[in-house]
Amino acid sequence: MAKDISKLSIDLVKRHGGKITLNPTLKIKSLKDLSLIYTPGVAYVSNEVYKNKNSSYDLTWRWNTIFIITNGTRVLGLGDLGPLASLPVMEGKSVIYKIFSGINAVPIPIDSKDIDEFVNIVSKISVTAGGIHLEDIESPFCFDALEKLQNILDVPVWHDDQQGTAAITLAGLINAFDLVGKDLKRSKLVLVGAGSANLALFRLLKAYSVDMGRVIILDSKGVLSRNRPDIQKIKESNRWKYDALMGSNFDNIDDIKDAFIDSDAVIGFSAPGSITPDLIKLMSKKPIVFANANPIPEIDPKVALKAGAFIVSTGRSDFPNQINNSIVFPGLFRGILDSRSKKIDDGTAISAAIELASFAKKKGISRNYIVPRMDELDIHPRVAAAVAEYSSNMGYSLIEGDKKFFYELAKKRIRYLTK
Amino acid sequence: MAKDISKLSIDLVKRHGGKITLNPTLKIKSLKDLSLIYTPGVAYVSNEVYKNKNSSYDLTWRWNTIFIITNGTRVLGLGDLGPLASLPVMEGKSVIYKIFSGINAVPIPIDSKDIDEFVNIVSKISVTAGGIHLEDIESPFCFDALEKLQNILDVPVWHDDQQGTAAITLAGLINAFDLVGKDLKRSKLVLVGAGSANLALFRLLKAYSVDMGRVIILDSKGVLSRNRPDIQKIKESNRWKYDALMGSNFDNIDDIKDAFIDSDAVIGFSAPGSITPDLIKLMSKKPIVFANANPIPEIDPKVALKAGAFIVSTGRSDFPNQINNSIVFPGLFRGILDSRSKKIDDGTAISAAIELASFAKKKGISRNYIVPRMDELDIHPRVAAAVAEYSSNMGYSLIEGDKKFFYELAKKRIRYLTK
Repeated sequence: MAKDISKLSIDLVKRHGGKITLNPTLKIKSLKDLSLIYTPGVAYVSNEVYKNKNSSYDLTWRWNTIFIITNGTRVLGLGDLGPLASLPVMEGKSVIYKIFSGINAVPIPIDSKDIDEFVNIVSKISVTAGGIHLEDIESPFCFDALEKLQNILDVPVWHDDQQGTAAITLAGLINAFDLVGKDLKRSKLVLVGAGSANLALFRLLKAYSVDMGRVIILDSKGVLSRNRPDIQKIKESNRWKYDALMGSNFDNIDDIKDAFIDSDAVIGFSAPGSITPDLIKLMSKKPIVFANANPIPEIDPKVALKAGAFIVSTGRSDFPNQINNSIVFPGLFRGILDSRSKKIDDGTAISAAIELASFAKKKGISRNYIVPRMDELDIHPRVAAAVAEYSSNMGYSLIEGDKKFFYELAKKRIRYLTK
Repeated sequence: MAKDISKLSIDLVKRHGGKITLNPTLKIKSLKDLSLIYTPGVAYVSNEVYKNKNSSYDLTWRWNTIFIITNGTRVLGLGDLGPLASLPVMEGKSVIYKIFSGINAVPIPIDSKDIDEFVNIVSKISVTAGGIHLEDIESPFCFDALEKLQNILDVPVWHDDQQGTAAITLAGLINAFDLVGKDLKRSKLVLVGAGSANLALFRLLKAYSVDMGRVIILDSKGVLSRNRPDIQKIKESNRWKYDALMGSNFDNIDDIKDAFIDSDAVIGFSAPGSITPDLIKLMSKKPIVFANANPIPEIDPKVALKAGAFIVSTGRSDFPNQINNSIVFPGLFRGILDSRSKKIDDGTAISAAIELASFAKKKGISRNYIVPRMDELDIHPRVAAAVAEYSSNMGYSLIEGDKKFFYELAKKRIRYLTK
């Protein structure tokens, strides 16, 4: 089966010469047309952009274009394959952007593992982009990069493995807690894994007013608490993990079993085997188990259900409740571009999460349907509208409007651009 | 008229939302297709590229993709408009690449005027490109950038305002000298202007075995000779201009009139008014006058002909003998990509120039037709074939072959990619 997918995937891109191609938006029929799109006509267009920077959104591809940036240090679950080998993934992401929300997403892998150099390069090449999508960058480098870039760039920056994954996870938690009749904001949560997804989820939960004292985070060495013997090392090597350690687990629980006892939900972004039936049996009534490690979940969904889990999610499309950021980013950047927003923050991710949750709720949530599915295409203009309205309300955007206005705009554009 | 072109050009890009757009190469019909182009299938493709870097030419868009890089310091004749305002020009160039040779040319303007930073950025982002096209960068920065990038990159680098313009100029000179029955290699040449085009032409003429002692270069202050009072300043501020000064004008001519006396050809890349009827009258029999300043030539072609010029070229499409690099770069990079060449040097430019000259010659050269015209589309696969054969012969390329092989390949690809 794996061999089959391998051969099919390789043959497919070989036959098509890669996954993406650049095309003119207009037909050139004569040398006169050329004189308008190139010299001498283009001089007037350049002068116009020079006089008014914002006209670049009307006169160039910027209004619909983002750059997908990576250094290839964490390509899928494969690790540090480097920038060149990351290109197939970035091309795939680019296709997803186009087919779901019509966006031009240009892959620009960068050969740099030096944080200052990387940030400088991104800042110097992003001047013509409508936004920056960071992807497949190892942690904690990715936290540093996102933070620095969001501070210095005049262009919105998104790290999909942080905010994207955290947004769809938060959406899933909102609806799962609704189903079990508990209050997410006053619950006991166990986050298994302290990489980009869970540390970003930690930030989002905090911004969503969850009681962080009862959130407990596990990394590969055990529970994050103030008693950790390596606490000084964590502080020095990973400021973001240290902040999460200090901002959670106010009872200083050290034992993994104690962490799971009476917990309402466990959210895994770690490795197969790190959530067991015995641990699930320690949880509170109607346990919520997110086993989102990809491609192999922390625990087999069937085993989790048998151990008493009431709702189970994974990162895979072949089980119910797929937690995957592909349902977030196409609509999110549609909304960012449509509102010409200059900024993305954790609030942007939360606005997307709330929209995702409410979309599923309107359709009718159940144990097997807590988040929208990939084939529910209306989710993309919905997320776009929520994000654009948030940007507009926050004063981040050049174009202002409400949800209805941005929903119609996104729908029209997606229809036109994906046809 | 100018206002008309201005309005037409601006309206056209506004209506189309810029000039270029990114599209999938393949139709996605189902979630199963997605599982091949994205996870889980894409992991196998990335692993393949990781194991064998050259497979990136088969499995990604790299085989047909170059980056158009600029810092916007010399946008057309408009000067330092900056990277954002350069984007309309780069998009126009991208369209020309696509319609004439099917290449994906991705505009990536960079916000940097520091040579080391600029070179570093280009080197770090070019790892997934099939080649680098530099454009609209001020001199002497552009000489430094090209030299450094050609030395450090594993990817071919072309600066269109140097090699492209010089290549079509050399092609024009070859045929013009043929028409007047003189030997280009033993002629007296006056180069008016010492910017990127003429200093690159100087290098190409030298590599083409022209007698450089009889080449005389003028800059805005007069004749470049060893007697120039500012020679030390030139040496310090512009090494490339200094090299040209030392490598030309062996008789140490200082006076502009003396430079023109008995000269066979004058090649202007300077400013309106720098070639006059009086100067042309000093030239040898059947004078060749290239008045290539754009958009306004050094001298009006009619005035030049009246003063005795036998052949006149300009940079414009509304006069005969247009000297414009758009006839060079689409085919040149087609040949570079088809042969998977790792290197471009001045010999590459000369191979293109010889092909351009011989193409026009076969069609039948005359005073009004010394170089191919934009609408002679067969020139592009011809140039591609010449360049690819040269790269193959020099050992620069991964794919080897002769002119015939590469001509058929280029023709097939252009037909397929531009349809």
